[in-house]
Amino acid sequence: MAMKPYNPQKGVPGFLFSAGLAKIKKARGTDLGLIAATRPCVVAGVFTKNRVQAAPVILCKKRVRSGTAQAIIVNSGNANACTGARGIQDAATICGRVAQELGISERLVLPASTGVIGIPLPLEKILGAVPDLVQRASPARAPEVARAIMTTDTFPKIVALRELVAGNPIHMCGIAKGAGMIMPNMATMLAFILTDAAPTVSVLRHLVRQHVASTFNSISVDGDMSTNDTLMVLASGASSVRIAHLSTPAGKVFSHLLHEVMQQLARMIVQDGEGATKLITIQVTGARSNAEAKKAALAVANSCLVKTAFFGEDFNWGRIMAALGRSGARFDMERVDIFFNGIQAVRDGQGIEAAAPRILPMLAKKEIMLSIDLKQGKQQSQVLTCDLSTDYVRINASYTT
Amino acid sequence: MAMKPYNPQKGVPGFLFSAGLAKIKKARGTDLGLIAATRPCVVAGVFTKNRVQAAPVILCKKRVRSGTAQAIIVNSGNANACTGARGIQDAATICGRVAQELGISERLVLPASTGVIGIPLPLEKILGAVPDLVQRASPARAPEVARAIMTTDTFPKIVALRELVAGNPIHMCGIAKGAGMIMPNMATMLAFILTDAAPTVSVLRHLVRQHVASTFNSISVDGDMSTNDTLMVLASGASSVRIAHLSTPAGKVFSHLLHEVMQQLARMIVQDGEGATKLITIQVTGARSNAEAKKAALAVANSCLVKTAFFGEDFNWGRIMAALGRSGARFDMERVDIFFNGIQAVRDGQGIEAAAPRILPMLAKKEIMLSIDLKQGKQQSQVLTCDLSTDYVRINASYTT
Repeated sequence: MAMKPYNPQKGVPGFLFSAGLAKIKKARGTDLGLIAATRPCVVAGVFTKNRVQAAPVILCKKRVRSGTAQAIIVNSGNANACTGARGIQDAATICGRVAQELGISERLVLPASTGVIGIPLPLEKILGAVPDLVQRASPARAPEVARAIMTTDTFPKIVALRELVAGNPIHMCGIAKGAGMIMPNMATMLAFILTDAAPTVSVLRHLVRQHVASTFNSISVDGDMSTNDTLMVLASGASSVRIAHLSTPAGKVFSHLLHEVMQQLARMIVQDGEGATKLITIQVTGARSNAEAKKAALAVANSCLVKTAFFGEDFNWGRIMAALGRSGARFDMERVDIFFNGIQAVRDGQGIEAAAPRILPMLAKKEIMLSIDLKQGKQQSQVLTCDLSTDYVRINASYTT
Repeated sequence: MAMKPYNPQKGVPGFLFSAGLAKIKKARGTDLGLIAATRPCVVAGVFTKNRVQAAPVILCKKRVRSGTAQAIIVNSGNANACTGARGIQDAATICGRVAQELGISERLVLPASTGVIGIPLPLEKILGAVPDLVQRASPARAPEVARAIMTTDTFPKIVALRELVAGNPIHMCGIAKGAGMIMPNMATMLAFILTDAAPTVSVLRHLVRQHVASTFNSISVDGDMSTNDTLMVLASGASSVRIAHLSTPAGKVFSHLLHEVMQQLARMIVQDGEGATKLITIQVTGARSNAEAKKAALAVANSCLVKTAFFGEDFNWGRIMAALGRSGARFDMERVDIFFNGIQAVRDGQGIEAAAPRILPMLAKKEIMLSIDLKQGKQQSQVLTCDLSTDYVRINASYTT
């Protein structure tokens, strides 16, 4: 299949985008985003599994359950989390104002927030910015939404892919934000995916759940799970390409497209990991179960000692062994093999002395593939992560999330 | 009870100490330590639960099971971990040489190592240093052993306490090292405790296991668990104060003394956490079970975002809520109370705005007590941790553990 990237300014048939300024953030720049469809869409979503959930997450979970939605209103600079009954009321009030301006039902508007936890939203500022936000909505402004939802992100995260289904094109555009507090379970901060395909709600729900495991739930920046993690996919159906079953050619193309958009967004988030200087793929093979493979990969991905060694470009496989050993995965330390970018560093749990001079130049690269074979079974898992730098600490010591 | 600290140079009746130089470390300074009793001691130990275990750990676990030991030979600069059959053989060979010089059985010698993982010990260097090490052994050299086992530690960790039991003094001296790769389960790096009391082996085993939970297993620097964690307690019996039962006055004094020595060593390790600028006690109360309280406290203690906020002296209780929410402990976010040094910052899951000006000066202190009340039950737990600084990253990016 030849998925083609396209300029996201070309938009997605059936959707309008807008960004605005409500002065919520201390930093300069837009902080309000709107995604509005011209008619009700099929919707599916996945949300944080954190027991502490932000007000917009609580509201969205309820609304997405209906399977229908038409707009997303999102702000950065304030997470509207730990804000109690007032937080829920504020999110609903904002949705109401957006609905009123769009001339649709409030229940079709989905709220999202990212930023500082524990401070009430500046409600009047946001409400005051809504009319202009709606008025400026246009098919070309998706990149502006990607910029408006940035917090510690250093670049906007947007991907647009197109594919033909029996001669008819379908479009898919994904917008995400996230650079810290990144850890499964669940999506990662905020990700919105828009398509003009016409899947049934059950197909869409199934695919979102399926692909989240290998994409957003397989990345980790710092092991911290956010209170606001939200992934929502809206399908306008404007393309008339109907997807009623997964097994049809159209179903397969759509599934592939969705996976690719999710994977590219997930990758961008890790690449933009706070202070990150390297993108590291941790692949664990030969595990007894997929769950154990993932446990092992995550233990390595989240080890501060492994991550600082990567930052220092220090060849330190002992820290990898130590992290594997506490992961809970079953293995025999006398059998583990470890490879850096395909070069074997450890055989049967012991270092290969001659490998060091070949591996050191690998460690200076921006992308590293760390492969670990437990030699216990046939299951495997892969996690994307980044290194832990002095800048990560600097950013998080001074930024109030 | 009035436990009295005393100068560790006065030693512990029945024990000799020595430090030597085998040039294992790149850094200057001694790297070999010997603790030898004048006759066989009662011994109990606890070891790392990491699946990847260093050779000396494997050997010690076997030897400690006998309940009797007479000497500890320890090196820094090399962990003798992930070194396969050769590692076990090397550790045994070193014990053999020490035993020969001391004129005792090899099985009575316990090996310990700390340092880089995955590189074979420089066996000849160590063997060559043993005769001089044994010859120089004296009752006064415990502080020298504490210095010889340092790696990234910035100060030697030693505590000596004395107590009277029915008019007879018992002595207890603890020596530890550890500053990174600190995380339960299990002791933390290396800790050796020597006493002249005469407990039975079953009393000693019971107390070591009991106290490790609230001391060494309740501290965390970076969430990484070492392959070499070792705690061993040797009792020479030189004081003639016999401890056959826990419930006797002597049993209670001994238990209290052991707990205090373990607690003080654990505290020193966190205080010396790599790059640490603050000592933070995280107390979780009102949990449904002790295990959930500990899970919650550890999730907060190990959160990179919470730790960097403490480093930045940033009042950021939202990150604490987010860490609690992913800990697995059951609670209702609308009921959580959070206090910094006794000043309430969060009531029923929401921030108290007026508290911020009173809490900010608290955050500049070197010691902070963070109290979290889940209001779900009566169980509680406490974890000692430190902040995450730019220096932690600097130390670990350049040091090969």
